[in-house]
Amino acid sequence: MEANTSTANPPLRIALAGLGTVGVGVLRLIEANRAIVEARAGRPVEVVAVSARQAGRSRGVDMGAADFVADMTALAQRDDVDVVVEAVGGADGPALALAEAALASGKGLVTANKAMIAHHGLRLAELAAATDAALAFEAAVAGGIPVIKGLREGAAANAIERIYGILNGTCNYILSTMEATGADFADVLAEAQAQGFAEADPAFDIDGVDAAHKLAILAAIGFGARVDFEGVAISGIREVRAADIAQARALGFVIRLVGVADCAGGRLLQRVRPCLVPTSHPLAHVTGPTNAVVAEGNFAGRLLFQGAGAGAGPTASAIVADLIDIARGTAGAPFSLPAGELQPMERADPGDRTGRDYIRFTVADRPGVLAEITAAMRDAGVSIESLIQRGRAAEDGGEVLVAVVTHEAPERSVAKVLALLEGSESLTAAPLVLPILRD
Amino acid sequence: MEANTSTANPPLRIALAGLGTVGVGVLRLIEANRAIVEARAGRPVEVVAVSARQAGRSRGVDMGAADFVADMTALAQRDDVDVVVEAVGGADGPALALAEAALASGKGLVTANKAMIAHHGLRLAELAAATDAALAFEAAVAGGIPVIKGLREGAAANAIERIYGILNGTCNYILSTMEATGADFADVLAEAQAQGFAEADPAFDIDGVDAAHKLAILAAIGFGARVDFEGVAISGIREVRAADIAQARALGFVIRLVGVADCAGGRLLQRVRPCLVPTSHPLAHVTGPTNAVVAEGNFAGRLLFQGAGAGAGPTASAIVADLIDIARGTAGAPFSLPAGELQPMERADPGDRTGRDYIRFTVADRPGVLAEITAAMRDAGVSIESLIQRGRAAEDGGEVLVAVVTHEAPERSVAKVLALLEGSESLTAAPLVLPILRD
Repeated sequence: MEANTSTANPPLRIALAGLGTVGVGVLRLIEANRAIVEARAGRPVEVVAVSARQAGRSRGVDMGAADFVADMTALAQRDDVDVVVEAVGGADGPALALAEAALASGKGLVTANKAMIAHHGLRLAELAAATDAALAFEAAVAGGIPVIKGLREGAAANAIERIYGILNGTCNYILSTMEATGADFADVLAEAQAQGFAEADPAFDIDGVDAAHKLAILAAIGFGARVDFEGVAISGIREVRAADIAQARALGFVIRLVGVADCAGGRLLQRVRPCLVPTSHPLAHVTGPTNAVVAEGNFAGRLLFQGAGAGAGPTASAIVADLIDIARGTAGAPFSLPAGELQPMERADPGDRTGRDYIRFTVADRPGVLAEITAAMRDAGVSIESLIQRGRAAEDGGEVLVAVVTHEAPERSVAKVLALLEGSESLTAAPLVLPILRD
Repeated sequence: MEANTSTANPPLRIALAGLGTVGVGVLRLIEANRAIVEARAGRPVEVVAVSARQAGRSRGVDMGAADFVADMTALAQRDDVDVVVEAVGGADGPALALAEAALASGKGLVTANKAMIAHHGLRLAELAAATDAALAFEAAVAGGIPVIKGLREGAAANAIERIYGILNGTCNYILSTMEATGADFADVLAEAQAQGFAEADPAFDIDGVDAAHKLAILAAIGFGARVDFEGVAISGIREVRAADIAQARALGFVIRLVGVADCAGGRLLQRVRPCLVPTSHPLAHVTGPTNAVVAEGNFAGRLLFQGAGAGAGPTASAIVADLIDIARGTAGAPFSLPAGELQPMERADPGDRTGRDYIRFTVADRPGVLAEITAAMRDAGVSIESLIQRGRAAEDGGEVLVAVVTHEAPERSVAKVLALLEGSESLTAAPLVLPILRD
């Protein structure tokens, strides 16, 4: 591929802040794919300045003629820079200061920083609109999968009714490995940490916060609403046991951490929870650290976007795609509508929703336990589709587990079941409720 | 959603040619989703003129103030039209005349016409470049799935190494129904025709031509090459029997019609063939009339785009997404690079490629048959991974089938096996070779 016409045009001049995995990935991509990138961009692409906490460290990548700048925010003041790539990380602090400075001075900003966009995306979009600067963050959601572009442009003609997906590779690796090996959560987590699939401090991933950042961004784009990270109800995967996965399988489901956002009735409901996914659903076949996002449009129907959710290569792919859009002058409103038109959406009351649930009770091995549970369900108006009681088994820690799948019921009724059983001596631990993903 | 700023801008004035399923779908979408479409477009959207073979027929959709124009190509001459939507169909004839007239007069052209783009896409792109007009055809490939945008922009920073996918909903419906029911091809086809899932004349779909149109378009975009439909080697699904699907399943595969394009060694290889897909692969779980496309980028890794491959709603979704891009002025080079930079690619010799194959022999029930087949394979240098001989069964028409899965071998060696066995009295029909999709 040759870049005939592109070399005649003025270059896109890039400043790169952060030389960790992501930043170095961007440099490597531009080095390896320069002809393709410049042909698609229609312009040469030059990294004119870089900044990082440590100046000297060799990163095994050619930085060309780029200046090394110690003061990161100074990148935003340079006259020879058109666009800043923020690869520093962190919702606030230096990343946010750099983003604000770049946009305030009318420079484009490209970032993979989901925490920053989930917390400050609206304000950054307003700032970008005020200075007519481009703001792009394809890499912030689902790594190299062009799902933001898919939602914002590909599905632009649709009313999006629901967006959901597997948004955290670490959790999906852990859950699908538990499924494949029968091992319990703690063992798989430890192994994932040893192999580098999970962070030393895995809380951000396994407690669902990372997935919630991404979900809030997708919901804002899909529904044309203001990003509302604080409105995401989050539960992580720590409570999921090997026994739950085995029961789910027996019932025709797998367990995945799924972020779901919908805007039924004009109200926004955003939740990240481990869910039972029917084996007939495409998300049931997403294993390992892969991400997958489904968007349901009123004309397009169900669209699925799937691929690598993280890693240097996929993240760089998304960042440089954003740079190409900026080079071509085609980067649109970051949240699909001009920032001033983004509506704040009222939050929905989940109690009003109906659904089916898997409920796992950990019970004492004595007479009357099942009678008490089933009476509570009857009294709360929740009818039982199936019930499995597993006897004591060493791998369950000698506990007796009762797994119930409900028929469609209001969520407030399921909450009532738990309230009725609260404090019961029949239960040896709090029940675990996992929703069944609506197909 | 409100369209605050958009109403102040000049409208995008659209002429629509063709009021069949697709054309009416576009009108319905604009009617139903007008606020969303105009907010995303940043401009009002007006259908100012329509044309169809039959003027009077009621289509159950509001045509608003649109003029009805009898002479289709006259749409391209109107001063009050910015963009023409071609929903007429056919590779040549009125559709091509309209497309050429619209682009020649500097109007944008949006089409779902895969045959026209596969045959004349390069010329139309050159014409569009000459008059600086937009040419867009997202709906030509995989219905409502934004895979052209995903390849052209989302994966723009990647060297794409291989593109493959399930590109024809009719074939996928037939094959997955054969799989689910055990029925044979002819019966499932007849039922699909009765239910409207297959055309009365199904040749275009089941012989793989429709998938080949789409594959050639995707390959051109992904590899930045001139579209080369004539270079696609095509075999359809007529020869696939229930017995093949059963054998494949026993070996851990399903059978799908897959279009595969790769550019290994800088040479283009494009083929549409029924393939054995490992059940671990995402394409194995694509059932019914769904489409799915995989693109392998050197940084993004494997990206999967999946959704409804046809139908009025999905097709309209893609067409109106193109209209929104044109309204925003962000429609780029239709084949990812300026038409003048698209390279003609030399075609690869498939004989040079290696792969694994499933070979089904239909044999006479007499001694020495297996010895003859296995000797031919030995002499051609193709080693056998597994072999299953099925006895006579009524559902196989009383024939004896021998199913072989080969180890990795050059394709010319497999061709040699068939040449060695040509004319053998052991075979009662020509063997069927189905490649195993490389994971």
